[in-house]
Amino acid sequence: MSTARPPEGADGGAAAPLIPVLAVAGVGLIGGSFAAALRQAGQVGRVLGVGRNPASLERAVALGLIDEAVSAENAAARADLVMLATPVGALGDTLRRMLPHLRPGALLTDAGSTKSEVIAAARQALGGQIGCFVPGHPIAGAERTGPEAADPGLYRGRRVILTPLPENSAGDVARVARAWEACGARVSDMDADAHDRVLASVSHLPHLLSAVYMEQVARAGDARLRLDTAGSGFRDFTRIAAGSPEMWRDIFLSNREAMLQELAGLRAGLDRAERAIAEGDGEALLAQLDTAAQARRSWRKE
Amino acid sequence: MSTARPPEGADGGAAAPLIPVLAVAGVGLIGGSFAAALRQAGQVGRVLGVGRNPASLERAVALGLIDEAVSAENAAARADLVMLATPVGALGDTLRRMLPHLRPGALLTDAGSTKSEVIAAARQALGGQIGCFVPGHPIAGAERTGPEAADPGLYRGRRVILTPLPENSAGDVARVARAWEACGARVSDMDADAHDRVLASVSHLPHLLSAVYMEQVARAGDARLRLDTAGSGFRDFTRIAAGSPEMWRDIFLSNREAMLQELAGLRAGLDRAERAIAEGDGEALLAQLDTAAQARRSWRKE
Repeated sequence: MSTARPPEGADGGAAAPLIPVLAVAGVGLIGGSFAAALRQAGQVGRVLGVGRNPASLERAVALGLIDEAVSAENAAARADLVMLATPVGALGDTLRRMLPHLRPGALLTDAGSTKSEVIAAARQALGGQIGCFVPGHPIAGAERTGPEAADPGLYRGRRVILTPLPENSAGDVARVARAWEACGARVSDMDADAHDRVLASVSHLPHLLSAVYMEQVARAGDARLRLDTAGSGFRDFTRIAAGSPEMWRDIFLSNREAMLQELAGLRAGLDRAERAIAEGDGEALLAQLDTAAQARRSWRKE
Repeated sequence: MSTARPPEGADGGAAAPLIPVLAVAGVGLIGGSFAAALRQAGQVGRVLGVGRNPASLERAVALGLIDEAVSAENAAARADLVMLATPVGALGDTLRRMLPHLRPGALLTDAGSTKSEVIAAARQALGGQIGCFVPGHPIAGAERTGPEAADPGLYRGRRVILTPLPENSAGDVARVARAWEACGARVSDMDADAHDRVLASVSHLPHLLSAVYMEQVARAGDARLRLDTAGSGFRDFTRIAAGSPEMWRDIFLSNREAMLQELAGLRAGLDRAERAIAEGDGEALLAQLDTAAQARRSWRKE
C-alpha cells in the first residue's frame, strides 16, 4: 500500500507485497480466510491479529493465519490495511480505540453482511477521518466458524461488493479492490442502500424463511416422523438454517428496514398462493409456480 | 406374483421373476424408472405400457423401458402388477377402464405424492374390488420428466411409503413391498392421513415457500441485480422451485387440507420472527434461530 517506508516483515529480496502490514480484527472464518488468501498470493508481509479472545488468537498464530496478536492501538499504529471482521456490534468500539493511533495513509475496510448500519457506526466513531474507511462485503460463508475454519480458497470466484463513501478517494477504493482480487474474488461496487435491499432479498430473507420453517418442523408433535421422512428437497431447502444463530440475529436486526419490506412482499405472494389453494384456483396457482420455475431454470444460464 | 400360470414372456430356463407381467400406466420418470429398476433386478418378465401420448410410448419402447404399448383394457387382462404412475386426475378414469378386465389375482399400486385423494378416487372407481389396490408413494424425484428421464437407480436407497387399506390382504401389501425392495428402496407403512400431513410438512410446504419466494425475486424491479448477486444459499434454497409447475399445482390442490394447516403454522412462526425484527427483540429472534439451527445440525446424525 504505502511505498514511502520499507515493508515491515517483508522479504527484502522479493517484490514488495501489496500490503506490507495487514491487521485483522476478528480472526475467524472471514478475517482468517482474508489473511490466508493474501498470504498464499504473496501479497502480504506481516499479519497482526486483534481480538477479545486470547485463546482464539493463540490458535490463529499456531495455524499461521497471523504472525502476532496485538492490541487495537498497536495494530492501528502499524498496519497499512485493517480488515474489520468483528461482529457489527463491536465495530464502533474497535474503531474508536484505533482512531488516535492510525498511521498516516492507513486504510480500513470491513466484511459486514449489511452496510448502512456499519457505515453509520463508522461515521460516528471516525468523524472527519471517515474517508479512510472503505466498506465492503464478501458474499461467501460457510456453516463453520472460528480460526480453524479459515481457508485461503474461501473467496476464490466469489463476489465482493464494495459500497464506497463519497469521502473515499478512488485510489483507496481501488486498493481495497486489488486486495480482494488477490484473494481470487470478483469485485463490484454498489450503493449501500441498494446493497442492503438486494442482500435482504437474496440472502437474508431465504435464511429467515428456512429457519422459521425448520423451527416449525422441530416443534411439531410428530417431529421425529417428519424428520425421518424428509428427503433431498428438505435437505437443500433447510441447509442454511444451520448457520450461526448469533450471526443471523445480528444481520436481521441490523438490516431491519429492508427485511421488513421483503417480508411484506413475501407475505403478499404467500397470501395469493394460499387463497388459490383454499379456493382450488389451479390457474392462479399455476401462473405463480410457472413464473418461479422459469426464473429458477434460467438463473445462471444467461 | 401369480404362480398359477406360466410366466408370459419370461425365459423358461431362468428362475421365475417376481412379476411375470408388469403394466405401467404413465411411462415417465416415476413409472419408467420403476420398470427399468425391476428389469435390471431380473424381477420382471414382460412390461406393458399404457398412456395417452403414442409418441411418448414409442420412445419408451425404443428406450427399452416397455416391451409394447397396449390399451388400459389389454393391460388389465394380462398384468400381474399394474403401476399407476399417471397424474392423480387421470387415475379414476384409468381404473374404471381396467376394472371389467382385471385378471384374477391382479394387483394394483400407484406412486402418487398424496394419498387421501388417490384413495378416494380409487374407491369410487373400483368399488368392492378396492382390496386389490395397495396405495404407495416413492419419495424420489428429479427436475427431469418423460421416459428419457427414467433411471433404474432412481429408487436405490430411497424411501417408499405404503398406506395400506383395511381391505388389502397382508400378502398383497407384502408383494408390493417386495417389488419396491427389488428396486433398491426402503419400504415402510404409514396411515394415509399421517402420510399427507407429514408430506405437506417436509415436502409440499418447502416447495411452495421456495416457489413463492422465487416468484417475488423474479417480479422485483431490480430482478437482474438480485439474481446476479445471489449466491450458494439462494441456489440451494430455490433448487426445488424449478420443479414441474403442473405437478406441484396438482399436489398442492390434492393435499389442500394439510397444506392449509401447515401454512397456518408457518405464518405463526413468521409473525413471531417479524415482530422480533420490528421490535429489535434479539432474544426472541435468537431463540427461534437457535431451535432451527440445532434441529438442522442434528438431522441425519442420530
